[in-house]
Amino acid sequence: MYGPRDVRLEERDDPKIVEPTDAVIRLSATCICGSDLWPYRGLEPFDGPSPWGHEYVGIVEEVGNAVTTIKPGQFVVGTFATCDNTCEVCRAGYQTSCVQREWMNPLGAQAERLRVPLADGTLVATPDLPPADLIPSLLAASDVLGTGWFGAVAAEAGPGKTVAVVGDGAVGLMGVLAAGQLGAERIIAMSRHAPRQKLALEFEATDIVEERGDEGVARIKDLTDGLGAHSVVEAVGTQESMLQAIRATRPGGHVGYVGVAHDVELPSEELFYSHVHLHGGPAPVRRFLPELVGLIWNRQIDPGKVFDLTLPLDQVAEGYRAMDERRAIKVLLHP
Amino acid sequence: MYGPRDVRLEERDDPKIVEPTDAVIRLSATCICGSDLWPYRGLEPFDGPSPWGHEYVGIVEEVGNAVTTIKPGQFVVGTFATCDNTCEVCRAGYQTSCVQREWMNPLGAQAERLRVPLADGTLVATPDLPPADLIPSLLAASDVLGTGWFGAVAAEAGPGKTVAVVGDGAVGLMGVLAAGQLGAERIIAMSRHAPRQKLALEFEATDIVEERGDEGVARIKDLTDGLGAHSVVEAVGTQESMLQAIRATRPGGHVGYVGVAHDVELPSEELFYSHVHLHGGPAPVRRFLPELVGLIWNRQIDPGKVFDLTLPLDQVAEGYRAMDERRAIKVLLHP
Repeated sequence: MYGPRDVRLEERDDPKIVEPTDAVIRLSATCICGSDLWPYRGLEPFDGPSPWGHEYVGIVEEVGNAVTTIKPGQFVVGTFATCDNTCEVCRAGYQTSCVQREWMNPLGAQAERLRVPLADGTLVATPDLPPADLIPSLLAASDVLGTGWFGAVAAEAGPGKTVAVVGDGAVGLMGVLAAGQLGAERIIAMSRHAPRQKLALEFEATDIVEERGDEGVARIKDLTDGLGAHSVVEAVGTQESMLQAIRATRPGGHVGYVGVAHDVELPSEELFYSHVHLHGGPAPVRRFLPELVGLIWNRQIDPGKVFDLTLPLDQVAEGYRAMDERRAIKVLLHP
Repeated sequence: MYGPRDVRLEERDDPKIVEPTDAVIRLSATCICGSDLWPYRGLEPFDGPSPWGHEYVGIVEEVGNAVTTIKPGQFVVGTFATCDNTCEVCRAGYQTSCVQREWMNPLGAQAERLRVPLADGTLVATPDLPPADLIPSLLAASDVLGTGWFGAVAAEAGPGKTVAVVGDGAVGLMGVLAAGQLGAERIIAMSRHAPRQKLALEFEATDIVEERGDEGVARIKDLTDGLGAHSVVEAVGTQESMLQAIRATRPGGHVGYVGVAHDVELPSEELFYSHVHLHGGPAPVRRFLPELVGLIWNRQIDPGKVFDLTLPLDQVAEGYRAMDERRAIKVLLHP
């Protein structure tokens, strides 16, 4: 990533073990995240050029001598932040706030090989080498599935609940899938794009709302006896989407927000009188990863459907363009 | 309440039954709330003059013909917002967002008599006429105890938890009491005023932190292995106090905020990466009132200690001055 609208594939030295807790993996697949579009669009500060990408699955090639559970030859799924998975914060389920956390981003997962710090904590091995058709779903678990899942958990989606999802990007669609898996009674996807609506319905959405902003909120209230949804997943990260999520939630309901917040200022007086619960942040995907890998392995969920464009890694720049222009929901890259 | 620093006792017509769901009660005691100081200090918009006050206990004199459970002669505790206690929002425990809610404030509980709408939902009768020494505690249940209790519940105070309380006003002190009743392991009261520190310790605070702002946050982290408290009760309502509360909470922890928010804008990016749960708002005191009345009736708690000045109603203006100047924590008024 060089800067706004400037992504290049370059030859770099192979990553090596630096810390004894590292692993080096050869990537089977990687992808482009909606959050990568913020620097790509010049909408967040960026000190480039830098290796980029933070979603990855692959085969372990080498581990440091302090790595005890992850072995060379295993197929692993990792997450976008490293964690020791043993500190008090990790044990409470907030691995993305691990006391030893490093963001994967300058390490750069849009590549052939990747060094993963804190390998024992960060990586989850599959039971065996996966068949090729499971790889997209396992890759989805690396971030978007886990992030949508956390949004739905943070919103307390569950039996008897009406769940609304703000945002029809990959994370929002995974929030729809998660709400269904968590047993929600009714799932309202807020989307005005036909291909995304279709995917939301495949992921068990029961209703589609095309309106946004105040009109979208009014439609949600129409569908919920005037009260608002019990649970709202916010998967965008803008001022408008956060307010839409809060206003669409009934008093006592829960907003789970996983869209990376950009220039959002919440008016506390409105929040105070809204009576909603607000929880979110960078999803502790690692908390859910063993369960999600199991659901995928047993073919109970198929989150890989969220990838609607697959390209070789050397077309990474075209992948960014396709997502930026909303021609693709999510782009898988083959190294 | 005429306006900033202008409170007058005036003769008004006796309140009458207006709606068939009303009750009229003769007040045994009323008081001044920290939130009354916002208009008193000219810090929130106010269209006066208006009857004022929203905390009350007393004896039912008359009920409308649709009132079925509340009877003339009963001693009742009411809350600062009316509720039907039957709608879906009430049943979920958010009676202050009841679909029929009215704020008590223009009705004016700093008075001899008060009309209470939705009497069956709003009022809770004591088992019998109370002895005089229980009246201050029952009056505290009308707002500050229930509000501090909700703050502690919203912050998920409980066994094994370290709870910090931001704000040493009556609500903050009640938050300390509530955290103790809910079984918290450690309770840190943030206060720099000796009489309030003393009361906090009587209410089972285990630690006092005098520092505020970033220094206060650093002290809380020192006391919690660098992580922050599990639960933080915010009982002030300013930008500084909200940020202090959020920053003093560990990732995955809970902020319960009950200070009425004034001109607070929460920076969402900080909130996002904080990983805290945020919940609060106007406390649904009615949810807790039967339990709180029971604890008081059985003399298990003594929240009435929070009243450190008692005045006859005709000295109401002096009561406001005493609270404004922080000469009193909370003023009880005898009609």
